[in-house]
Amino acid sequence: MADERLTGFGVFSTMGEPPRVGFLAGDEILDLAAAGLGRDFAEPSLNPLLARGRGAWEDALGRALELLERGQGPRVPLPEATLHLPFQVADYVDFFSSLEHATNAGRIFRPDQEPLLPNWRWLPVGYHGRAGTVVVSGTDVVRPRGQRRPPGADAPEYAPSRRLDFELELGFVVGVPSRLGEPVPPEAFADHVFGVVLVNDWSARDLQAWESAPLGPFLGKSFQTSISAWVTPLALLEEARVEARPQEPPPLPHLAGGRDWALDVALEVELNGTVVSRGNARTLYWTMPQQLAHATSNGASLRTGDLMASGTISGAERGSEGSLLELTWNGAEPLLLADGSERSFLEDGDEVVLRGRAGAVELGEVRGRVLPSR
Amino acid sequence: MADERLTGFGVFSTMGEPPRVGFLAGDEILDLAAAGLGRDFAEPSLNPLLARGRGAWEDALGRALELLERGQGPRVPLPEATLHLPFQVADYVDFFSSLEHATNAGRIFRPDQEPLLPNWRWLPVGYHGRAGTVVVSGTDVVRPRGQRRPPGADAPEYAPSRRLDFELELGFVVGVPSRLGEPVPPEAFADHVFGVVLVNDWSARDLQAWESAPLGPFLGKSFQTSISAWVTPLALLEEARVEARPQEPPPLPHLAGGRDWALDVALEVELNGTVVSRGNARTLYWTMPQQLAHATSNGASLRTGDLMASGTISGAERGSEGSLLELTWNGAEPLLLADGSERSFLEDGDEVVLRGRAGAVELGEVRGRVLPSR
Repeated sequence: MADERLTGFGVFSTMGEPPRVGFLAGDEILDLAAAGLGRDFAEPSLNPLLARGRGAWEDALGRALELLERGQGPRVPLPEATLHLPFQVADYVDFFSSLEHATNAGRIFRPDQEPLLPNWRWLPVGYHGRAGTVVVSGTDVVRPRGQRRPPGADAPEYAPSRRLDFELELGFVVGVPSRLGEPVPPEAFADHVFGVVLVNDWSARDLQAWESAPLGPFLGKSFQTSISAWVTPLALLEEARVEARPQEPPPLPHLAGGRDWALDVALEVELNGTVVSRGNARTLYWTMPQQLAHATSNGASLRTGDLMASGTISGAERGSEGSLLELTWNGAEPLLLADGSERSFLEDGDEVVLRGRAGAVELGEVRGRVLPSR
Repeated sequence: MADERLTGFGVFSTMGEPPRVGFLAGDEILDLAAAGLGRDFAEPSLNPLLARGRGAWEDALGRALELLERGQGPRVPLPEATLHLPFQVADYVDFFSSLEHATNAGRIFRPDQEPLLPNWRWLPVGYHGRAGTVVVSGTDVVRPRGQRRPPGADAPEYAPSRRLDFELELGFVVGVPSRLGEPVPPEAFADHVFGVVLVNDWSARDLQAWESAPLGPFLGKSFQTSISAWVTPLALLEEARVEARPQEPPPLPHLAGGRDWALDVALEVELNGTVVSRGNARTLYWTMPQQLAHATSNGASLRTGDLMASGTISGAERGSEGSLLELTWNGAEPLLLADGSERSFLEDGDEVVLRGRAGAVELGEVRGRVLPSR
């Protein structure tokens, strides 16, 4: 097992057998239902395991790693499995936690103003996305139609988006619920959160630009969000913990406790076989415990299956941005792909793959291909 | 039955008996599980009925009305029942469909600008709310804490909201799902939507003002949203249909089909026993079929239990506004209550009740009391 990449828990099925829980290591799925780990693993979703809490999570991971170590347990080659959405998404929250992304977005969308709004350094800005259109890696994305106003036009038109983009994000998955009216402090993060997934928050920039004032993004995002088929438990990422970047001004007391760690996860985006972005989740300004604490600071409760994503992860260097919007500076500097073609935004047929790696741990990839509008 | 008020379907329980589906008429619940209407009615949620579609909905309503007409079927007095959230909320979308509310909000929040933004008359502006904190009428609301920036201060503080408000809204409940990538035209509204509920979208104006740029409302809304315990089926509101108000400019073709009707539902808000607002859902600019068509116009799919609310319903006359923000003009003109006290925003202990009526049909009330911050 020493050389084997570890990924995490997911839900898979094979010909003639129902969906069940497995653990991906290298290119093989350890079949935890067939290995007899119990009823929670014979389910078509991770939700029952998620709801059990930290003790059960540690036990499940310990037993999976032990089977792998000993070379025991039934295995299924990854290519023979059909992968399913690993958990039922309760609410989906999308943050805006990368300083560089927020700055880039401000410069592009509001060129005459300070790129960061006054609230940005005081709280992890976020909004609710559409939980019902979160899909598993491998699901194609149909180019959305929507209202956009062509430059210089008085009236909008309803047409296929011309500015379809990806967003590279890291999301965390809530296991243990909380009670309505009771904030969850950042220190309680590990009691509630099971693990992480990569997230591609597909975005139609032209729809987004027209619709977003004053209530924020809606149809420019809600057509689809893709996540990894595998949830990497936090416990597998202990060695990836690094000091979080400094915050200035210091956060208010209710958000102060979550500053002690970030995740050193190397990230990349591949577009039609060309790596177009290389970044790292450690560059995020707001940490995951701070995101969770903020989202519940008004007393909002958590449910099993809540998904909270970081927002686009962009670094300070050119080439580390997590969206085409930034990589091509809103289309002004198209990317050159290995096949000699150029891209400002996504074209029909394009395939995007997100990857993340932290030592021997490889997050589940997020893959999706763009289909033409119907 | 002729004089009996009809309300709709909900989920109730009685001492020693599990939650089940009933139909509220007057002050009595017709127990549809005990009446033998079938397995869907012995469930703790309307979701199985919702998923079955129009034929089953018409059948269920027909059988309930027949039992009432004949004076048959087991009844439970309303005060003896515990009421439950009537359906599992999938995604919650909140619109901004009242012209007068959007205009008032623009004047209050952006006094130096045109109150309506350029997109407002082209599409029903909306955003996703938090589905996990939608609760049933009768649930108290804990005053949320959150970040707000006091006037003139450089830094925000984390403290109990001082500007807690209600929002009077009408929401519709999706029964039949749709497929990802396939817009639902306004003409298909009745094939997907089961019925309506009143919605109190509690809002903390000070949190909302500080957090909302650029991604919209989040914690200022997500602490709690209260809905009726009873879903009034669309079929009961046939006689309440009236012509929708004119729209200028005419909507784009994909939203044009939904203009043929609005609902003449008289609305009121009672605060500590004083009626503080009287309005009507027919004043809404964007219709429910247009809201549904817009929300799916990018291919976003529907799930059973999706809740879509109108946004605050305000009329043109003083006293018909659906929020304290507007009724008191952001606190500048406090309301005088029957007990002699004044209100700018809600105080601890205040009780808010929303009511709606269309002829013999009375929508389920939405009641909630404000508890102090914990």
